[in-house]
Amino acid sequence: MVDKAVKDERHKARQQKLKENVDKRVDAAQTERGVLIVITGNGKGKSTSGFGTVARCVGHGYKAAVVQFIKGTWDCGERNLLEGAGVEFQVMNTGFTWETQNKEADTAAAQKVWQAAKRMLADPSLHLVLLDEITYMVQYGYLDLDEVIDALNARPEEQSVVLTGRGAHRRLTEIADTVSEVQPLKHAFDAGIKARKGVDW
Amino acid sequence: MVDKAVKDERHKARQQKLKENVDKRVDAAQTERGVLIVITGNGKGKSTSGFGTVARCVGHGYKAAVVQFIKGTWDCGERNLLEGAGVEFQVMNTGFTWETQNKEADTAAAQKVWQAAKRMLADPSLHLVLLDEITYMVQYGYLDLDEVIDALNARPEEQSVVLTGRGAHRRLTEIADTVSEVQPLKHAFDAGIKARKGVDW
Repeated sequence: MVDKAVKDERHKARQQKLKENVDKRVDAAQTERGVLIVITGNGKGKSTSGFGTVARCVGHGYKAAVVQFIKGTWDCGERNLLEGAGVEFQVMNTGFTWETQNKEADTAAAQKVWQAAKRMLADPSLHLVLLDEITYMVQYGYLDLDEVIDALNARPEEQSVVLTGRGAHRRLTEIADTVSEVQPLKHAFDAGIKARKGVDW
Repeated sequence: MVDKAVKDERHKARQQKLKENVDKRVDAAQTERGVLIVITGNGKGKSTSGFGTVARCVGHGYKAAVVQFIKGTWDCGERNLLEGAGVEFQVMNTGFTWETQNKEADTAAAQKVWQAAKRMLADPSLHLVLLDEITYMVQYGYLDLDEVIDALNARPEEQSVVLTGRGAHRRLTEIADTVSEVQPLKHAFDAGIKARKGVDW
């Protein structure tokens, strides 16, 4: 059995190495500009991560804006709170696309809210723009991928953007600075547990 | 070339099938209770997902509380906003553990804030408790895993809990209802871009 002093020494050595690695990386990271973050994958937590970043942003006194491409018609806890904190929300008003079953109406609704997104992506007063569930709009052909990429690339240098949704197009992850893929290892829904107000929506 | 009417018909059929599958799963999910969610993995977006869920919760008028096991000593945007919205925060006051290099002091600090976590996990007025970065406390041996599991299992039935952090212990993911693993496909930091106020912290 290894005695406590040896274990403590090993722990200290590991933490020291961790600190050195982190310090080195922090020193190396010197470019200051807005970033493009893509949160994709099939797991739970993509939109909430986007909204958590918006909460962080406005908590520092910066301006942020949100376009919700799918979940808009629900009673939405995060919107209640963040709109109250001065965040502009633009919401696609058709709800889940499989509820409407009408490609032309969905395309028109997506295009309408995309105009608001383009305005936000050109607004240097916005520190952060969240385009929640935009990946589906590209996937279903409601938005033109080239137009989305052009608007992202032309945004003000200090502006950060978060894109969320499953199946982000490869060309979106290519231009992103940070890409996280959320994998579902387990989901309460599959065990018969109902989506919960204040947690799942 | 497939003409537009045929493509629209195919799109409609796909969306119809999607709707049927989702409806079936929604009908099957009838158990109503609080859930335990674990957001783990090495990618960016775990803590922000937890804080987004807190924003959602309080936006519906429910009570939520947060324990921050690591990031506490920074100027923290999400805390500024959410404390203002009535969320109780308890913060471990040593910052990153590799800054302190002192296992005994870290253990004492973790144990102190864990007492607050235990109180929260026994409080039926809380709809949601976020234990941010608790996985490291278990991993480093600062908290006893059995004690953490007992407190989680004994919590009020209506209370949901979110645990975040890399390398969640297998026994934590086993008792969880929902587990997401955030994989880092790319990170701005690795391209030399500095962590950004209002986005990364």
